[in-house]
Amino acid sequence: MSSQNTAKISAEGIRPGEVAVSLPDEADASIYFIGRIRTPWKSRKEAPKNAREARETGAICTLEVDPRWQQALAGVETCSHLIVLYWMDQARRDLVVQAPAHYANGRGTFALRSPVRPNPIALSVVRLHKVEGNRVEVVSLDCLDGTPLVDIKPYFASTDAIPDAQVGWHQKEKAVEQR
Amino acid sequence: MSSQNTAKISAEGIRPGEVAVSLPDEADASIYFIGRIRTPWKSRKEAPKNAREARETGAICTLEVDPRWQQALAGVETCSHLIVLYWMDQARRDLVVQAPAHYANGRGTFALRSPVRPNPIALSVVRLHKVEGNRVEVVSLDCLDGTPLVDIKPYFASTDAIPDAQVGWHQKEKAVEQR
Repeated sequence: MSSQNTAKISAEGIRPGEVAVSLPDEADASIYFIGRIRTPWKSRKEAPKNAREARETGAICTLEVDPRWQQALAGVETCSHLIVLYWMDQARRDLVVQAPAHYANGRGTFALRSPVRPNPIALSVVRLHKVEGNRVEVVSLDCLDGTPLVDIKPYFASTDAIPDAQVGWHQKEKAVEQR
Repeated sequence: MSSQNTAKISAEGIRPGEVAVSLPDEADASIYFIGRIRTPWKSRKEAPKNAREARETGAICTLEVDPRWQQALAGVETCSHLIVLYWMDQARRDLVVQAPAHYANGRGTFALRSPVRPNPIALSVVRLHKVEGNRVEVVSLDCLDGTPLVDIKPYFASTDAIPDAQVGWHQKEKAVEQR
């Protein structure tokens, strides 16, 4: 959650307009962390607020892949861009409606890229800088140093790039900001 | 794994050129399935081979979100495109080098979009057709009917669309095919 928020936060850490649900009693599947992400950001305060800001810093971040999985990197060096999945281990999982401080209204979790979601898997598209052994250098991620790595995938423009895609609620918020 | 493969498969189901590793003793985190995906594909044989083929079918597929999470869909209806994460529950997790039948050489798992990976989370970018209650209709997914749903995210062109991204090994394979 944004450290900028100044709205009243309840005892359970829920802001006005937010909605939490009870989590399921049992999990359905399990995740292996395949490594850690090294970034220059040691606290939420220093970290970029989102993927766009991260990219603007131009900072090189490193995906340190566990040696067990190192052979799985063969061919990654030929990719210009990668999709990185990582685990936001500090995020709560029970909010269905969220009210980030920088937006006017509450939004459904699945309409947001917030780390707070039932499965706190974040996704970033990054430019590959270099692969060296088990270390993959990319530009650039918004997560804290030490964040657990979940997956690395090649980015295929043919299916992954939709340059004219729209997020209606977000465009409306931006229009309000610019008024 | 592709049903087209005709290469020799070992007792452990590993093809020549493939490499398996032992999985970690313990998992690091857990996943809640947030719903199921309804598609027209009841078997691997009928299913599209990849995201591009799925899109070409134009088939409407439905993300059936568990009622527990339904409120999290507020605002999703304003998105033209979504990122869908789903769990490939039939895929093995221990291959680091894979030799899909339709490619000439073995490739590292992280250079492939194969469902076989340490964390079998598949990712597709889809066009939104309609949201109705807890049902999100999209065009189109390549997974089998009943596949567990893991996450829905809005697609932001500003950070997610890289139209000139390249996957070098894939372009080389295509060039060989066309010779």
